[in-house]
Amino acid sequence: MSTVFVELSISLDGFIAGADDGLDNPLGDGGGRLFEWFTAGPESNRINRYFCPPDTSKQIVEGWYRDCGAMISGRRTFDIARGWRDGHPIDVPIFVLTHNPPAEGEWSPRVSFVTEGVERAVKLAKEAADGRDVSVSAAGVTRGLLRAGLLDEIRLSVVPCLLGSGVRLLDGIGPVDLEQVSVIPSDGVTHVRYRVARP
Amino acid sequence: MSTVFVELSISLDGFIAGADDGLDNPLGDGGGRLFEWFTAGPESNRINRYFCPPDTSKQIVEGWYRDCGAMISGRRTFDIARGWRDGHPIDVPIFVLTHNPPAEGEWSPRVSFVTEGVERAVKLAKEAADGRDVSVSAAGVTRGLLRAGLLDEIRLSVVPCLLGSGVRLLDGIGPVDLEQVSVIPSDGVTHVRYRVARP
Repeated sequence: MSTVFVELSISLDGFIAGADDGLDNPLGDGGGRLFEWFTAGPESNRINRYFCPPDTSKQIVEGWYRDCGAMISGRRTFDIARGWRDGHPIDVPIFVLTHNPPAEGEWSPRVSFVTEGVERAVKLAKEAADGRDVSVSAAGVTRGLLRAGLLDEIRLSVVPCLLGSGVRLLDGIGPVDLEQVSVIPSDGVTHVRYRVARP
Repeated sequence: MSTVFVELSISLDGFIAGADDGLDNPLGDGGGRLFEWFTAGPESNRINRYFCPPDTSKQIVEGWYRDCGAMISGRRTFDIARGWRDGHPIDVPIFVLTHNPPAEGEWSPRVSFVTEGVERAVKLAKEAADGRDVSVSAAGVTRGLLRAGLLDEIRLSVVPCLLGSGVRLLDGIGPVDLEQVSVIPSDGVTHVRYRVARP
């Protein structure tokens, strides 16, 4: 069955981007630290131009590529990523949840806009994923899915740093009980995976 | 050499107590979830009346008892714990950092009040610890120590739940780089340990 999960790199203090993120500062102040592990491995571990991770993380990243059949993202991430016009590292349909789709501009042909809310986005993404999983990579969408009871798993790559400020992933959502599925320490990052418990 | 570390149970969303914690609600709303692992082990793992943890966690808790020579805490924790008048699980000197020591009341004879700031508290606690480590178990003190560059390690027991609100441990402190020392998954909790990098 198709699983809907959030997959993000996060600081120990809970930020997925630094402060003042935007078009001119896509990762926010200091946010580049969250992605250092992407390319911290030996050249022999290179997966593509984005990923050359340490040994243990390589298996995690290869799992993302293998399992992901569609993505749900948010308008802010779409804007900051410039609509993935040069391609997204994972070449699958991307559903961007927004009340205001852009009237014009340039973006990846894999992008569709969904204006009817999270339930509709999940339905479309699951159909497009065709049995594979649906990956979410935006903080606002994650919170919306958690509130709607539509998120199955939380998968975080916890980076050993404190950013102090920026975009928080988890705030104001709870109490929610989780089940610890796996905790895999790698070199300079730890990959954790939790299942959202249904009441 | 004596290490100064914070040691706390924390939800995945970063709270060390639930909302509205106080004398009548010492762990805050839903905060009891953070301490379930303390007593989640088989009776054969019982360490004392507070701790009966799962197998892997037992070794961690026994390490706390072995390594801890003194503690630094905050006034709010002191109040909520009612001055540890019935004893603290770890029987060592406790230095309570406060601008306003209580004029009267009842508290553990192990408690001393420090009004001269975090540096003085660390100095006194290290002297009292006599080569063993200094453990910190209060959010405000932790942030004060991080700001002053006096915290050596962050040791968290990450509990698989979201509290949504409450007392946040880490907020507004950064950027600070950390070194991942150990990540130990146990049954229903994960014990992580990070060293604070010095610039």
